[in-house]
Amino acid sequence: MTAQDPGARPDWIAVDWGTSHLRVWPMRGGTPLTRLQSDRGMGQLSPDTFEATLVSLLGDWLAGIENRLPVLVCGMAGARQGWREAPYAAVPCTPPVTGVPVETVDPRLAVTILPGLSQTQPADVMRGEETQIGGFLRGTPGFDGVICLPGTHTKWAHVSAQEVVSFRTFMTGELFALLSKQSVLRFSMGEGWDDAAFGDAVGDAMARPATLAADLFGLRAATLLEGLSPGAAKARLSGLLIGVELAGARPYWLGQEIVILGEDGMAGAYRDALVAQGAQVRCVPVDDMTLAGLIAAREKT
Amino acid sequence: MTAQDPGARPDWIAVDWGTSHLRVWPMRGGTPLTRLQSDRGMGQLSPDTFEATLVSLLGDWLAGIENRLPVLVCGMAGARQGWREAPYAAVPCTPPVTGVPVETVDPRLAVTILPGLSQTQPADVMRGEETQIGGFLRGTPGFDGVICLPGTHTKWAHVSAQEVVSFRTFMTGELFALLSKQSVLRFSMGEGWDDAAFGDAVGDAMARPATLAADLFGLRAATLLEGLSPGAAKARLSGLLIGVELAGARPYWLGQEIVILGEDGMAGAYRDALVAQGAQVRCVPVDDMTLAGLIAAREKT
Repeated sequence: MTAQDPGARPDWIAVDWGTSHLRVWPMRGGTPLTRLQSDRGMGQLSPDTFEATLVSLLGDWLAGIENRLPVLVCGMAGARQGWREAPYAAVPCTPPVTGVPVETVDPRLAVTILPGLSQTQPADVMRGEETQIGGFLRGTPGFDGVICLPGTHTKWAHVSAQEVVSFRTFMTGELFALLSKQSVLRFSMGEGWDDAAFGDAVGDAMARPATLAADLFGLRAATLLEGLSPGAAKARLSGLLIGVELAGARPYWLGQEIVILGEDGMAGAYRDALVAQGAQVRCVPVDDMTLAGLIAAREKT
Repeated sequence: MTAQDPGARPDWIAVDWGTSHLRVWPMRGGTPLTRLQSDRGMGQLSPDTFEATLVSLLGDWLAGIENRLPVLVCGMAGARQGWREAPYAAVPCTPPVTGVPVETVDPRLAVTILPGLSQTQPADVMRGEETQIGGFLRGTPGFDGVICLPGTHTKWAHVSAQEVVSFRTFMTGELFALLSKQSVLRFSMGEGWDDAAFGDAVGDAMARPATLAADLFGLRAATLLEGLSPGAAKARLSGLLIGVELAGARPYWLGQEIVILGEDGMAGAYRDALVAQGAQVRCVPVDDMTLAGLIAAREKT
């Protein structure tokens, strides 16, 4: 199947444009014809270079297009420093929310950028994850519970009656990256993993979240004094950070049905920590969710 | 007064050799003849370059020296990657602790490196701060209470009967540096300060330490949604981190006489936060304390 085959011509384009990645699906109804990707994320583009970047990546998929082709974009391309700002929609609301049109020079494109979500009290924002949530809800319309999206900035969203009622963002992933790569703890880290060290650290941190900054330095001391292994140190660092987060996010997950969007190592760590707390939790692949959310947005138009 | 004047010849040398600095005092008894300094810290030296670095910085101050001149060194020069490892002394003990001799090529030097302190449960280490504590105790021999040494790795030490009984290290300063300069929060930070924002954040974090990672991201959200000023964001970041630390260090400071070794902005922030908690606290200049601790070590030999 190629773009030259008229039967394979897209009738709309789905775009996930994050800080460090760009993924594009030429679509025919609810079916992707292919997936194109690039490392030209929003972080390295100025507002006037988005359109040319997209047209270049689409290439032949625009051949023969005569009327403006709907292009739905989610992610950081809608941030203030992105292609064009798509102001946040305030919760409670049902994602995906109607987007903001962007004028293009190329007459073959009709671009719309989906907004992120915001919350006033406590102040919080998301941009991109709301589309994943919308994708999950498209497949599980009756869901009532909590969705956890592990990542650099892990999101916890309370969902009821198709709406995101409230959400909270924890910088746990970014803290892990900074501490394991840039702090004094980098000298203690290495390959490997230790499930027991992870589990113990989750428990320690949930019991005494206030001593986090001391328990962190304790990793370095344990390396120097006790020869703590690099893999155990890494697992313990992850466990301390996730444990403090679970203590802080308890109002979100306690007694709730929890879905973790993700299947990678980080999602597995959250799952293991929650299961150890007796929580009802399942992991769902996140890769399809962004596309499903873009399809849900297309279906709404 | 110059080194060429025989009356000004040092009879020993005091050295503070940290990761990123080197300070050297040619001494006559308890009196420094001058202070020499360099940025050639332990972090940029290999074991075989320490001696030449010291001799070069001393220069003419070694002229006319015939017998081996005692040189007392404290700080990271005694770490495993330093000049020579001076193994930690376990608490409880009275700093400064007897040092470890280092052989030199230069026949005019008799170098001794002072050890740091270690603690088994919870695992913890210090290297350099024990000399500052020893210096403070030289001037305040009857002190019974808690010494707080704010820094990249803030130390809380419980002191009684001239001994360090226990101590705990919090990575608060390093977290502040990483978050304010390298995380997504750097886009929210800037010049200025806001005492009220600092105080509120200390209170918030002491009340709910477990939501630290969410309150941190909340700074970014407040910038985007509410136009939080860069100075208030910086003060609030500092307040959140110090507040969580004070909640975790409560067993150290509650009901104790507290001395903060330091007078800079960070020491002032700790003082303000502790005073708001009704604690008895005073700040003492830290600059002299390292030299006083080295003099105390010299007096013990």
